[in-house]
Amino acid sequence: MPESVLREASQAVTEVAGEGVSILGISHRSSWFRNVLDEAEENIRGLLSIPPEYRIMFLQGGATLQFSMVPMTLLRGRSDPAEYLHTGYWSGKSITEARREGPVRILKGSSLNFGALPSASELESQHHQNAPYLHYVSNETVEGLQFHRTVGRDDVMRVCDMSSDFLSRPFDINKYVIVYAHAQKNLGPAGVTVVILREDILSRVSDDMPAMLDYREHANMRSVYNTPPVFAIYITMLVLRWLRKEIGGLEAMDAMNQAKAAALYSALDASQNFYRGHAAVRDRSLMNAAFRLPTVRLEQSFLEQAKNHGLYGLEGHRSIGGIRASLYNAVTIEAVMNLCAFMENFQQQHGRESELNESASMKAAL
Amino acid sequence: MPESVLREASQAVTEVAGEGVSILGISHRSSWFRNVLDEAEENIRGLLSIPPEYRIMFLQGGATLQFSMVPMTLLRGRSDPAEYLHTGYWSGKSITEARREGPVRILKGSSLNFGALPSASELESQHHQNAPYLHYVSNETVEGLQFHRTVGRDDVMRVCDMSSDFLSRPFDINKYVIVYAHAQKNLGPAGVTVVILREDILSRVSDDMPAMLDYREHANMRSVYNTPPVFAIYITMLVLRWLRKEIGGLEAMDAMNQAKAAALYSALDASQNFYRGHAAVRDRSLMNAAFRLPTVRLEQSFLEQAKNHGLYGLEGHRSIGGIRASLYNAVTIEAVMNLCAFMENFQQQHGRESELNESASMKAAL
Repeated sequence: MPESVLREASQAVTEVAGEGVSILGISHRSSWFRNVLDEAEENIRGLLSIPPEYRIMFLQGGATLQFSMVPMTLLRGRSDPAEYLHTGYWSGKSITEARREGPVRILKGSSLNFGALPSASELESQHHQNAPYLHYVSNETVEGLQFHRTVGRDDVMRVCDMSSDFLSRPFDINKYVIVYAHAQKNLGPAGVTVVILREDILSRVSDDMPAMLDYREHANMRSVYNTPPVFAIYITMLVLRWLRKEIGGLEAMDAMNQAKAAALYSALDASQNFYRGHAAVRDRSLMNAAFRLPTVRLEQSFLEQAKNHGLYGLEGHRSIGGIRASLYNAVTIEAVMNLCAFMENFQQQHGRESELNESASMKAAL
Repeated sequence: MPESVLREASQAVTEVAGEGVSILGISHRSSWFRNVLDEAEENIRGLLSIPPEYRIMFLQGGATLQFSMVPMTLLRGRSDPAEYLHTGYWSGKSITEARREGPVRILKGSSLNFGALPSASELESQHHQNAPYLHYVSNETVEGLQFHRTVGRDDVMRVCDMSSDFLSRPFDINKYVIVYAHAQKNLGPAGVTVVILREDILSRVSDDMPAMLDYREHANMRSVYNTPPVFAIYITMLVLRWLRKEIGGLEAMDAMNQAKAAALYSALDASQNFYRGHAAVRDRSLMNAAFRLPTVRLEQSFLEQAKNHGLYGLEGHRSIGGIRASLYNAVTIEAVMNLCAFMENFQQQHGRESELNESASMKAAL
């Protein structure tokens, strides 16, 4: 989270400027909060040049609730299967939820352990023009894989979970009917999810939908159908303002993210396989780098020593272990350079040890 | 929100003590946050003496999502109607959602404009032992009505929306299978909802339930099935700690709430019908007092002058208008006395004016 945002947030908890009340007590129907919502929406619209026929909503329930709301809206009662790309941990979760609502056809590449994304040519024969929609996850945080292209065909509606790379780079909203992203990666704190939805999708919502899962209610009530997560939306607005005014927009943000990722992956590549990246080079994520060390014991030492150097949150996801470095928007290039320097030092201390171990186990094997 | 909670919250936004990171950036899988969740749960358990066979969860989506999750879990596929008390604005909303999931029978009293709650004798003949469950709202915030008894019969499962009076007074959890309450009244900021559920209810969840609406997922994962609203839960924990350690528990809180309500209702009753309470005396809420002034013009002056005296948020709900004073846990007796003094002064200034108007319109009518 940017420092300037934390300062304003901390102040707002004590008292919202000019309102005489803490943000934790302010009404979600106040004109102050309506302005917050409007500025948040306007900033997203400006950053991505979103045309008026797209609605922007701030919802609860995370990407997980969108895993259900999307197929409840677009798949229920259909006989043609929706196409779901299975590219890693999170897209797998989206498929489980979609299957409860209707037929799903899985599209995937040839990589067995989600070490690479399916290429355009691998997918070409799998796409079908009758699919109600295509769903994919633009960035798989666990495996550190990111699409660097738009997937699918233009005559099939695209839905994309951009939870972990939304607003890290520009993209063309006109290629999608629904884009969603929870806030807790690049946008704000946990508890709010941004949904951008092409207006005509609203006419597809069935009338028996529970109100909280009905995009029409949220669109018509402009994100205050029920009490929204006021504080989380306020922080999101501050981050969006920072992105637009201080960073200067998504081209600038993308350039910074490219530079950070280049530094980290160069460090991996220079390590002569001491640090072993999980993702194929072509599909490396600018947001998350997942990598292993020669042994689990070394990984544990790495994590412990990293903490002593003030480098936190480097544990790999519990499903695959290892190390994961995340490079979200608010991570500075200085922080990445610190990490690279730590990695180099750690290798100098332990690289030899690992060679000795490997040579010892080779001798034992002989 | 109590002052001490705001101070700690503001500090945590800058940096969580001992963690070197803002609460807006801390992992929901950290041991720090696990401790927050555990303390929040333990405090609720302690305050209400909740036995181990009840699960306590912190969810998203507000009471509105519970309006759907409850009938999705307990009513879908049933032929006997669930009983829903219709006692005001919010219970009406719960009924709309329940009807999407299965048959519902409305129970109500004889009051035409929700000016009173149904009495025990009015309800006695309406209850049916075959109902899958009885649902009611313990406190109707819009109308200022509150049940001062447990409703229903012991051989029909009770579900209660306590969003607006949860932890304002003691109650016996053993009388209910599900109690839920969003946080933004007595507990914390908007964005988190507490659900207390008797364990055996988990076996009634259908396997085709979307994961986010499946109580089993949240109970088994102890509120971290997906990324929870970390900040809102932290604030809730601080408020619970305040309630237990600083206030001294629910008997003490109830005594304070009784005193606050007594002061306000005495002011209404002493006004000789200048301030006209909406609720029948028997069903007056300790949390919200809804009342009218002789004219809409006077109500507008009242609200404007109240703001000049630092008294905010007194507008009645948009569905019924008028004035509404809320007396939630964090409202101090001093604040209520200030309001009462303001009301008395306002009446002294404007009471005569309103009499003159009334006498003028009587003359005009003659």
